[in-house]
Amino acid sequence: MTRSGRPYHHGELRRDLLGAARQLLDEGGPAALTLREAARRVGVAAPSAYHHFPNLDALAADVAAEGFAELAATLEAAPTDAQGRLGPAGEAYINWARANPGLYRLMFGEKFRQAVEASNGVQDGRTRTHELLVGGLAKRHLDTDLATAALFAWALVHGLATLLIDDPSNATMAARIPDVFRLAARGIPLGPPVRDAEGRP
Amino acid sequence: MTRSGRPYHHGELRRDLLGAARQLLDEGGPAALTLREAARRVGVAAPSAYHHFPNLDALAADVAAEGFAELAATLEAAPTDAQGRLGPAGEAYINWARANPGLYRLMFGEKFRQAVEASNGVQDGRTRTHELLVGGLAKRHLDTDLATAALFAWALVHGLATLLIDDPSNATMAARIPDVFRLAARGIPLGPPVRDAEGRP
Repeated sequence: MTRSGRPYHHGELRRDLLGAARQLLDEGGPAALTLREAARRVGVAAPSAYHHFPNLDALAADVAAEGFAELAATLEAAPTDAQGRLGPAGEAYINWARANPGLYRLMFGEKFRQAVEASNGVQDGRTRTHELLVGGLAKRHLDTDLATAALFAWALVHGLATLLIDDPSNATMAARIPDVFRLAARGIPLGPPVRDAEGRP
Repeated sequence: MTRSGRPYHHGELRRDLLGAARQLLDEGGPAALTLREAARRVGVAAPSAYHHFPNLDALAADVAAEGFAELAATLEAAPTDAQGRLGPAGEAYINWARANPGLYRLMFGEKFRQAVEASNGVQDGRTRTHELLVGGLAKRHLDTDLATAALFAWALVHGLATLLIDDPSNATMAARIPDVFRLAARGIPLGPPVRDAEGRP
C-alpha cells in the first residue's frame, strides 16, 4: 500500500524507492543509503522493498544507472557553441554533479564500486556519456587523436566536479570554472622559462 | 611489546600502527581500515592502539596527513623540464596515486572526509602541494592568472588519478597520459567547425 492507503501499482513502488534512495544520497551521501530506510520513507515494510531490490547493492546500482542516464541527457541538452568550445557541455556536466553530489559520489566513488561497475544500466549510461563526449570532439578539426582529447576533457570535468563537490562552499573555485575551460581550449601557454640575473633558467 | 617480544620504544608503536593502516588501505581501501585490525597486525591489544589513536578518525587523519606529505615530496622531487612542460610533475603525481590507491581514496574520498579535512597535518600537506604546483607554474610566463592555471592543472591530474585508480587494469588509458599532458600544454586546438554539404555547421 502507498502512504495514502491505496495499493501500489506495478512499477510505482520501485520508482518511489529509487526516489527515496536519491533523497538519502542527497542528505548523507553513499554512506546514508540503506534499503530499510528507503522502504521506511516510502511507507512500506522492508520485505516489500526486497521484492524489487534483493539487496542494497541492487538498489545502489539502479540509482547509479539512473544517474548516468541523466548525466548523458544533460550533456545532450547542453547548448552547443558555434565556436566549438568545450565550455557549455563541461559546465553542464559540472553543474549536474554539483546539484547531485551524493549521487555523483555513488556513481564514481568507492563505496558501491563493484555493484556499480557490474550494472548493465551503468555501463550503458557511461558508454552513452563517452560517445557524446567523443561525438562533440569529433565535430572539430583536432590535430590530435580523439581518444586522447576525450580522456583530457573527461579527466578535467571529472576532476573539477569532484573538487567542487568536496568543497561546495568554495565560491572562488566555482567562479573560476569558465576561465579554466577557456584555458583548456588554448592550453597552458609556455613562454620561455624565467631566467635569473645571470641568465640561468 | 613488539612482535619480537621487546617493549615498544616511544613513537615506535605509533609508526607501526600507521604502517599497518597503510597495508589495510592497500588491501581493501578506506572501508578496510579499522583500529582493531591495525592493532592486531602490529601484535598489540586494542587498548595499546587507543593510547596513540583515540578513535578510527584519528588514525585515518594521520595516515592521510602522511599521504599528503609524501605527495608533496614526490612533486618536489619530480624532474624539472627545461621547456617548462607540465608533464613530469603531473606524471609523478599520477604515479604516486596509482601506487597508493587506497591511501589516495582516503585522502580525497568520502569515507573519512570530515576527519581528514579537520586535520592540521592534512591542511599543511595540501597547502604545500598547492604551493609547489603554483610555484612550478609561476616559473613560466603565463598570460593567464596563476589561480586559474593551478585549478586547471590540479583538476586534470586529480581527474586522471581517480579515473586510473578506479580502472587500474586499463593499460590503454594509462599509456595515453603523456599525450594528455602534451595536449594540456597546447590546448584542444579548435579548427573551424566541420560543416555539412550545405555549409551549415
